[in-house]
Amino acid sequence: MKEPLRIVPLSGAGEVGKNMTLIEYGDDAIAIDCGLMFPENDMLGIDLVIPDTTYLLDNPGLLKAILLTHGHEDHIGALPYILPDIPVPLYATRLTQGLIEVKLKEAKLLDKIELNTITSESVIEIGPFKIEPFHVCHSIPDAVGYAIHTPQGLVIHTGEYKFDDTPADGRPADLDRLRRYGDEGVLVLLSDSTNAERPGHTPSEQIVSAAFEEIFDETRGRIIIATFASNISRIQQVINIAMRHNRKLAVVGRSMVDNVKMARELGYLTAPEDMIIHVDDLDDYPDNQIAIVCTGTQGEPTSALVRMANNEHRQVRLREGDTVILSATAIPGNEELVHRTLNNLFRLGADVIYQSLRPVHVSGHASQDEQLQMLQLTRPKYFIPIQGEYRMLVLHGRLGQAAGIPPENIWVIENGQVIEFDEEGAFPGEVVANGQILVDGLGIGDVGKVVLRDRRLLSRDGFVAVVVAIDERTGELVEGPDIISRGFVYVRDSEELIEEAKERVIDLLESGATHRDTAANVIKNNLSQFLYQRTRRNPMIFPVVLEV
Amino acid sequence: MKEPLRIVPLSGAGEVGKNMTLIEYGDDAIAIDCGLMFPENDMLGIDLVIPDTTYLLDNPGLLKAILLTHGHEDHIGALPYILPDIPVPLYATRLTQGLIEVKLKEAKLLDKIELNTITSESVIEIGPFKIEPFHVCHSIPDAVGYAIHTPQGLVIHTGEYKFDDTPADGRPADLDRLRRYGDEGVLVLLSDSTNAERPGHTPSEQIVSAAFEEIFDETRGRIIIATFASNISRIQQVINIAMRHNRKLAVVGRSMVDNVKMARELGYLTAPEDMIIHVDDLDDYPDNQIAIVCTGTQGEPTSALVRMANNEHRQVRLREGDTVILSATAIPGNEELVHRTLNNLFRLGADVIYQSLRPVHVSGHASQDEQLQMLQLTRPKYFIPIQGEYRMLVLHGRLGQAAGIPPENIWVIENGQVIEFDEEGAFPGEVVANGQILVDGLGIGDVGKVVLRDRRLLSRDGFVAVVVAIDERTGELVEGPDIISRGFVYVRDSEELIEEAKERVIDLLESGATHRDTAANVIKNNLSQFLYQRTRRNPMIFPVVLEV
Repeated sequence: MKEPLRIVPLSGAGEVGKNMTLIEYGDDAIAIDCGLMFPENDMLGIDLVIPDTTYLLDNPGLLKAILLTHGHEDHIGALPYILPDIPVPLYATRLTQGLIEVKLKEAKLLDKIELNTITSESVIEIGPFKIEPFHVCHSIPDAVGYAIHTPQGLVIHTGEYKFDDTPADGRPADLDRLRRYGDEGVLVLLSDSTNAERPGHTPSEQIVSAAFEEIFDETRGRIIIATFASNISRIQQVINIAMRHNRKLAVVGRSMVDNVKMARELGYLTAPEDMIIHVDDLDDYPDNQIAIVCTGTQGEPTSALVRMANNEHRQVRLREGDTVILSATAIPGNEELVHRTLNNLFRLGADVIYQSLRPVHVSGHASQDEQLQMLQLTRPKYFIPIQGEYRMLVLHGRLGQAAGIPPENIWVIENGQVIEFDEEGAFPGEVVANGQILVDGLGIGDVGKVVLRDRRLLSRDGFVAVVVAIDERTGELVEGPDIISRGFVYVRDSEELIEEAKERVIDLLESGATHRDTAANVIKNNLSQFLYQRTRRNPMIFPVVLEV
Repeated sequence: MKEPLRIVPLSGAGEVGKNMTLIEYGDDAIAIDCGLMFPENDMLGIDLVIPDTTYLLDNPGLLKAILLTHGHEDHIGALPYILPDIPVPLYATRLTQGLIEVKLKEAKLLDKIELNTITSESVIEIGPFKIEPFHVCHSIPDAVGYAIHTPQGLVIHTGEYKFDDTPADGRPADLDRLRRYGDEGVLVLLSDSTNAERPGHTPSEQIVSAAFEEIFDETRGRIIIATFASNISRIQQVINIAMRHNRKLAVVGRSMVDNVKMARELGYLTAPEDMIIHVDDLDDYPDNQIAIVCTGTQGEPTSALVRMANNEHRQVRLREGDTVILSATAIPGNEELVHRTLNNLFRLGADVIYQSLRPVHVSGHASQDEQLQMLQLTRPKYFIPIQGEYRMLVLHGRLGQAAGIPPENIWVIENGQVIEFDEEGAFPGEVVANGQILVDGLGIGDVGKVVLRDRRLLSRDGFVAVVVAIDERTGELVEGPDIISRGFVYVRDSEELIEEAKERVIDLLESGATHRDTAANVIKNNLSQFLYQRTRRNPMIFPVVLEV
């Protein structure tokens, strides 16, 4: 008798199944992707968030391999954190592999992990699974989805995709293959929900090329284009257009420099050797022969574009006559930083062109028409929308209904929810561990609710620590009180308040109102009330009573 | 000889001239608006931000009056903070006055301030100024702009406006009057730049009514509409449509209840007495006879909608069959909170309708076509774009050029920049104080860079305080070290690290490596290095050495 097929979406944050999805049959499982999320604004001090792999750690030997769909951080970025405990072989296309190698090298894992190169022609056999990667278009080249043949039927994982007939790299998504899978019969489709709120068809990269072309035609000054360092196709578009307009290209920003180097070595970026110049040599060329491609689309404080906007970039000083193109959109949560950067660029006199003004960016994700087309090509029996926040999954689920899938065969689920497929149908299984594992410095998962709550409290009103030494026999004040405070009031202007607080502590100790054992608590409550009354702020209060 | 006319934009945050603009002639000045800004995400713990009025305080008696354009917080909200020091008469339309009175009452200022009611037919004489309010459409009724006749010429301040031929209250903006001012000759136009990035014409409120109508037609369950409490016209739209569909209306959320009460008393909202029901009585009616209007469009954690979304609202438990309409957009910076709320509403099974799905909200601000029309109607000699972030002012300035104003007559300026107008032309004057005054609890302006920096540091990696008592003669350790830490590591799981830190402190003190006077510094540096090495985090470190 066959075992049930089990599917489990996992993710480091908000979006469901964004960073990792498990496909499990009997004693074997594979994971699609192993990515990280950047922290939400209220995850104070957190560097990044990775998926919870407790379920895999509790079932050693279960996971046999990780297959990567493309080279973005939210799909490969958690590998250095998860591989040390679960050192399984990886499967990735050439460019994705190049990006992974950089990470594994940094983490000193390169020798320890088996890395298999695949193409969209590969057939991979892992335990009971026969897996065929298929080509899709996305905002990074060499992206694939996976067709996974299992004993219970065919699973299609779309990866992140859009259908672009005229992509920058000339390779449209493999619709024929998807249709063929549909003809064969698809058990379940796991499909990208990112743009489920957007009607229509995502515009082609061709639109961006056309907008660039226009801008290059009109512009006599320097042209600076900021885009994601991983958006190799966009960078290729810039190279092509710059070349046609006799402009040299300088590459600025560490990750941009690294990625361009790697992509050129692997042949994913082509540019004549003498066209790429060093940023230090910009002054050797007239303005109308210069183009610069750089990082900083999200307003990251240390990025090249933000340094330029703040007039702090060592090599590129912006001035009137410069044209800056922001070829990206703000990721939700980054709007304030991006807007600030745009304002500062305008303040320097640059002409700034961004998406609300001209179509200098298009999304890398399928909009509703393409999502519907994906459903119609693959005609799955079951549908699990993945890679989206909950509201997007719901909307994508409705598209599934529009495509004729009965509502009871559409599973809008949360991270950790197992769905089991067997001869009888599809059923919800158990919920496996699905927390958000927060990474802060070297700590993986040690910062949780308590630490975050304290950071939040400290960020609001700071703290006040009161230190006294009392006689261990008499309870009398021997030394102090010393008061330290940060983030509460500007201490230089608040000497009176602090002095008054000290006097209250002395009074409390001298009045004998406090028993020695309870001194700390009495000080805390009393000060807390006093300070709130005087400031309407609630600093954290820490009394330290040393008995000497 | 005539004096120069001086115009000074001020604002509490990002946007230029958003909250307050001074118009000054000789010894007299008036202010248009006196509003607050909500803090940006990195202004940790700050309640709100008000304009810097140092210039007015340095010139006592200069300001003669404040004229308000409409009743939104960013135009009237700073009055309670600024009037105590500068108790000048106020001029406002009836509804705006109603909203101001609530504030002045709370601040115990109502008896001390002269509040004058104006209409769009009023003519106000203040010193050398003759001022005519004119009616405009905005997302709150009773909004006006001001035509200010000065000895140097006519100044037009648009307030926040859009041109809506079919507004909810039936009163389009007074285009004839604007054209007449244009005929008379306008010296300078100060115009709303908020939507300078948006092409076309802002859709009419009629679009929202139509969308509501459709939704009410289709829906059998309860309908919950979240909108801004100040958007009285939107609330009237809801009342009208609910009435036609035989639904009772419950009003939920403190500010919504207060505003509805006040607006009904003043006649700005009309509803049959038996139509408005108490939220406690919802169970007395079938679902298809219920509509609820509530607060929470920005995902504010304690708002009615967010409590409903978290299933924590005492009186309204959402369930499948409910339809929730979010009739507003996220203010930049609030996206994460709004998205989280939408996701949670969907999780409860509600059908949620928001702007990306259907036109259930329109902006209250003029888009490019209306901005151009404003320029064409008033045909000003000079143009100062206000009420927008810097990039929007630049774009609005370009529209001014498109309308035929020479570039040298368009002043894209920052807060605090004085522009002077005299018989010779327009010239930049001095830059007056233009800081952001942060309000935190009772403190106005006491939280500045230092306190914010400390809050930022504390929010990232928390702090570690080390307390020891040493013998004042020998320098020997008498008691401690005690360590307090918050927001750094989860202390229960880090006992080893804390113990090790304590031992290091003991070693440092016992080894004699530390001179008594420098003990604190040595402890700080040593611990800082140790903790970074072990955790790659940088908590703030506070050593306290008591000599006993």
